Amino acid sequence: MSSTFGQTFRIHTFGESHGGGVGVIIDGCPPRIPVSLDDIQKELDRRRPGQSDIVTPRNEADEAEILSGLQDDQTLGTPIAIMVRNKDQRPGSYDEMATKYRPSHADYTYDAKFGVRALSGGGRASARETIGRVAAAAVAQKVLDTLSPGVEVLAWVKSIQHLEAEVDAATIDSTTIESNPVRTGDPIMAEKMVEHIKATRADGNSVGGIIECVVRGCPVGLGEPIFDKLEADLAKAMLSIPATKGFEIGSGFAGTQLTGREHNDAYRMEDDKVRTTTNNSGGVQGGISNGEHIILRIAFKPTATIMTSQETVSSDGNNTELAGKGRHDACVLPRAVPIVEAMAKLVLTDHLLRQRAIAH
Amino acid sequence: MSSTFGQTFRIHTFGESHGGGVGVIIDGCPPRIPVSLDDIQKELDRRRPGQSDIVTPRNEADEAEILSGLQDDQTLGTPIAIMVRNKDQRPGSYDEMATKYRPSHADYTYDAKFGVRALSGGGRASARETIGRVAAAAVAQKVLDTLSPGVEVLAWVKSIQHLEAEVDAATIDSTTIESNPVRTGDPIMAEKMVEHIKATRADGNSVGGIIECVVRGCPVGLGEPIFDKLEADLAKAMLSIPATKGFEIGSGFAGTQLTGREHNDAYRMEDDKVRTTTNNSGGVQGGISNGEHIILRIAFKPTATIMTSQETVSSDGNNTELAGKGRHDACVLPRAVPIVEAMAKLVLTDHLLRQRAIAH
Amino acid sequence: MSSTFGQTFRIHTFGESHGGGVGVIIDGCPPRIPVSLDDIQKELDRRRPGQSDIVTPRNEADEAEILSGLQDDQTLGTPIAIMVRNKDQRPGSYDEMATKYRPSHADYTYDAKFGVRALSGGGRASARETIGRVAAAAVAQKVLDTLSPGVEVLAWVKSIQHLEAEVDAATIDSTTIESNPVRTGDPIMAEKMVEHIKATRADGNSVGGIIECVVRGCPVGLGEPIFDKLEADLAKAMLSIPATKGFEIGSGFAGTQLTGREHNDAYRMEDDKVRTTTNNSGGVQGGISNGEHIILRIAFKPTATIMTSQETVSSDGNNTELAGKGRHDACVLPRAVPIVEAMAKLVLTDHLLRQRAIAH
Amino acid sequence: MSSTFGQTFRIHTFGESHGGGVGVIIDGCPPRIPVSLDDIQKELDRRRPGQSDIVTPRNEADEAEILSGLQDDQTLGTPIAIMVRNKDQRPGSYDEMATKYRPSHADYTYDAKFGVRALSGGGRASARETIGRVAAAAVAQKVLDTLSPGVEVLAWVKSIQHLEAEVDAATIDSTTIESNPVRTGDPIMAEKMVEHIKATRADGNSVGGIIECVVRGCPVGLGEPIFDKLEADLAKAMLSIPATKGFEIGSGFAGTQLTGREHNDAYRMEDDKVRTTTNNSGGVQGGISNGEHIILRIAFKPTATIMTSQETVSSDGNNTELAGKGRHDACVLPRAVPIVEAMAKLVLTDHLLRQRAIAH
Repeated sequence: MSSTFGQTFRIHTFGESHGGGVGVIIDGCPPRIPVSLDDIQKELDRRRPGQSDIVTPRNEADEAEILSGLQDDQTLGTPIAIMVRNKDQRPGSYDEMATKYRPSHADYTYDAKFGVRALSGGGRASARETIGRVAAAAVAQKVLDTLSPGVEVLAWVKSIQHLEAEVDAATIDSTTIESNPVRTGDPIMAEKMVEHIKATRADGNSVGGIIECVVRGCPVGLGEPIFDKLEADLAKAMLSIPATKGFEIGSGFAGTQLTGREHNDAYRMEDDKVRTTTNNSGGVQGGISNGEHIILRIAFKPTATIMTSQETVSSDGNNTELAGKGRHDACVLPRAVPIVEAMAKLVLTDHLLRQRAIAH
Repeated sequence: MSSTFGQTFRIHTFGESHGGGVGVIIDGCPPRIPVSLDDIQKELDRRRPGQSDIVTPRNEADEAEILSGLQDDQTLGTPIAIMVRNKDQRPGSYDEMATKYRPSHADYTYDAKFGVRALSGGGRASARETIGRVAAAAVAQKVLDTLSPGVEVLAWVKSIQHLEAEVDAATIDSTTIESNPVRTGDPIMAEKMVEHIKATRADGNSVGGIIECVVRGCPVGLGEPIFDKLEADLAKAMLSIPATKGFEIGSGFAGTQLTGREHNDAYRMEDDKVRTTTNNSGGVQGGISNGEHIILRIAFKPTATIMTSQETVSSDGNNTELAGKGRHDACVLPRAVPIVEAMAKLVLTDHLLRQRAIAH
Repeated sequence: MSSTFGQTFRIHTFGESHGGGVGVIIDGCPPRIPVSLDDIQKELDRRRPGQSDIVTPRNEADEAEILSGLQDDQTLGTPIAIMVRNKDQRPGSYDEMATKYRPSHADYTYDAKFGVRALSGGGRASARETIGRVAAAAVAQKVLDTLSPGVEVLAWVKSIQHLEAEVDAATIDSTTIESNPVRTGDPIMAEKMVEHIKATRADGNSVGGIIECVVRGCPVGLGEPIFDKLEADLAKAMLSIPATKGFEIGSGFAGTQLTGREHNDAYRMEDDKVRTTTNNSGGVQGGISNGEHIILRIAFKPTATIMTSQETVSSDGNNTELAGKGRHDACVLPRAVPIVEAMAKLVLTDHLLRQRAIAH
Repeated sequence: MSSTFGQTFRIHTFGESHGGGVGVIIDGCPPRIPVSLDDIQKELDRRRPGQSDIVTPRNEADEAEILSGLQDDQTLGTPIAIMVRNKDQRPGSYDEMATKYRPSHADYTYDAKFGVRALSGGGRASARETIGRVAAAAVAQKVLDTLSPGVEVLAWVKSIQHLEAEVDAATIDSTTIESNPVRTGDPIMAEKMVEHIKATRADGNSVGGIIECVVRGCPVGLGEPIFDKLEADLAKAMLSIPATKGFEIGSGFAGTQLTGREHNDAYRMEDDKVRTTTNNSGGVQGGISNGEHIILRIAFKPTATIMTSQETVSSDGNNTELAGKGRHDACVLPRAVPIVEAMAKLVLTDHLLRQRAIAH
């Protein structure tokens, strides 16, 4: 188990869906950064279940408590510990899952790795684990605001199964994204997506899709080649989110269809800055940000929990069947949007501090 | 700059395309692993330029020297340092590049980050940097052979621009891949790819494509959720390779088109083992290997260096033009195949040792 | 701020003397280790104030709560989060200290480093911070018990100022140490030490001393040269404890008075084991445990807080005077004994897991 | 094996006394730091054997080669690899040591840990390993000179067995220390020490002693509590040097004889700076530098290799005898002086960069 992310701005998360609570320690946060409980709670509220009628109806308030590291809404430079109590536990819903491996879940692999596993709610593989990340990223955003003002991270649902939204990464804003329950940037497609998710849920089935994310205002020079290239750390960050299967930056897989002549981003001077006339690089060249928009796309598989019966095996090694019970999202993407943003913010903040260490 | 990869089986690489040489220190390698210089040289020979008529004609022997850590072809448990001398330097070829930023290269971002940059051959952003990784992975393979026999990592060219090969990840073998200069697993498509690369080069242009990689025989239980999930570390590993723009595992982006009912991998008992009847998960569930084939795809952009004139800016901030000179690959994928394999081997070996630390 | 200790068995501590609480996340703990809340509480009770009439009379119950990582008194392999609420806060006692730097405390250096500081109770420099270490070490002891049975770590007060106890590291037991409030292993000297501490406190003064620690039953082969030598990690562990000024292993500083002929530990076979006839090495040779008793001594300075007026400066840069107030230990050593043991256990457990990673 | 030191300014060393060579990679070094080969060679020359008639007569030139990371005597921000070839190998001298464990050496523990061991020259436990540290520290000094001018690190021999030098840490200079072969700061005692070492060697015996080290001009605010306190990292650094048995900072063990009233360092304003009137703290309070001189003392045991016969066991488990052969130092302290300085410089540089990351 490795629950640490980051080198200089580091977070350590803890907590399962059962037990006393989940949370995070942020270590390496600069002092004198203004942070309030509201800054954190606002982001947790975007992640929590029960926000709309297309996500899981579990109504957990997910109230954050700051245990250390702040005084008068200002960071002290000491570890910031944030905790959210587990409240709405219904272990009974999961009884069958304690003895049967849910297909495409982590039940079997946790058992195989550890020889033991949290018997309710998915344990550490539960989406509830991401609370710590989102809370920490709210602090990260404040660090960015203070030390590199103007860095803006926005994510939205780019597609749900075959339904693809049209969104302009250069101009999309938070209000538009938050105005629809699916958190896409295309109001017309949003309605279709909502209908599709509802129909899928009614069918006891599930869907996945793609989340797109833009970083605007990233300073030039972030990223630590060779191994901690900015895109490499972003890729790791995104693939650490549950249910992800793919990552792209800039032209991504589609860029493999172009020739070098078409793909290369020409440089031009603009307002005394080095700019590129196209952005197939996606804001990163050689592992280092070039000041253009950083554009990412992350593939999420359809939710593993479905309400129809599936073939599986029991933990004692017999073939059996299992149908999902309890409260689950038929589509995780709306709630994953703030998690994608969170991971991007954590990567950027870490790299900002790393660059400060050597800049002179 | 961060040139360390891995937590327990760690490598530290060094070296630019200019200067005395490039290489690697492997730290944390178990003792008493049989390793010979030949094991390392064989892999370096697969990576080096000048192997065939579709790759850069630079003929560098890339001869490895083992400086420490071995005695009588056996690891001592101490750091293994491997060096390859730089020999075939022609700094003159790069003069213009010292003052003009090559589009979609790392020249500008290195200058912006460090305020200084190696003025010949791309410096640390050169593909030559990957020598250390490939040498280290040759040792990693021997660790796998000793501590977890049967782990096999194979990569091949899946596509070159629009040309896509048909390859069965379950049965493809090294001999087939190495039998054609493009390193694909589809002999018929191989010829078309070779022609396409030659035509592209003749046109002074370049192409990219997709490399696919399979891990067969991976033990169940590797991967350290939450942040060091096996797919997360593989994603980081692959995105740290120069020219990569995307990463997929299992169903990847295509999997977003399926419903949960279609995508879920049913479990069945087979020879007293838990197996899945399909493999959309790509061998990893919840960040931990499940014993099925691990299937990865990595997108490589077209080579940035092309032989036609492109718009760019000079390091003193003026608009100008630049055409590539020197010896470059019109398509990097054939030489990137052993690098993809190398990064996968490094991730697996690290996670194998990490699992050994807590297994009991 | 860096609140992480260990490489493979890692702890992350948090918390100030003010705020919601203090605690620790343990990451990298093997699964299926039996651990109960009692195991942890028992050690915290040894560390807490108010245990006897020679330590600070603050009566904090220091009740531990386990937030995650355990199920049915068994570790899950996931992060174990343990929290202790802050209860007995009297910030009023510290008002003057908010504006005047306490001599030989961390007030000034925290202000100089961070530009801000917790204004009550010493913040992160408070001895309260050690709660997380002691809680984590209780878990570490259970890991040792399970994976390397027979490892026993015992510490005791060797000296208080000029009063030096006679203790045989080979035979001293926990009962003897815990039978006197000063936690020494010499009952006669214990009484003198108690009297001396009481007299010192009555005088508004303070004293320091030396804690000795033995590790018995340590397996051969722990320690990771070159930089993570067992004695190097132990030295770091001990010097991270508040108020420490020195560290010795084996013959220590006194060993510099011997010649090689006198100092060398001759090897002899004994019961088919390689043993040494003397133990000037202190159980470690070349950074690796040799199976003999590991013997450490740690110097603690006299408590910085004294009740008489001292010259100091205010945080706004003026010369002034300050006398200690509030509740403080005139001698920290009795309460530091479990902290020394805790740090030794954390080092040993980390190194045990590290050795398991490469052993074969 | 763990051959990495530092978090942000990191070094990775490699190499045994046999094999191709020894060396170091420095990663995380800021760019545009002026460094020449001479800067490095000069320090290596202080460390190498054969400098005077009181150290081992092995005459190894220890010529450094810089393999990467520099251009025109300036750092590039990329990994700096430095190598020193092994030249003067006489494996024949060590034949008997391949089968018999040298008392108080690392032969037995390496065998026990790794199940294999370099059969000549002490392998990785050889003092030759420190070459990489010294080379890296020469670069570290240049980083300090550039980013925090005025930091000065000086070490000297404080005592050889019972012979103790009088040295004023505030005023001692490099010229005085280097003017005598024993590298002490007390010219009169230097002669006695030289005589004592010669007499000891003539007797086939060996001696140890204490090295003292001062850091002058250290900026306020370096050190990362809780675990990476400046004194904790210094303790680890020093205890990682071969043959060390103890570490003190400031008042050290002697400070345990004082009361708080005597030991506390009063603050006074001086030239608008916060200063202390005494320095029992040794320049560090609460793990953070306070701007006063940092004073360290490190205990070195007598050299383990002596020329008289000692009881020992063979690697196949039989009692036997062994007398040292070959070329060894009867006293390692003169050559350890630059190593102590090197480790202090590495710690300071790392902490300087770490502080820069969060300072604002």
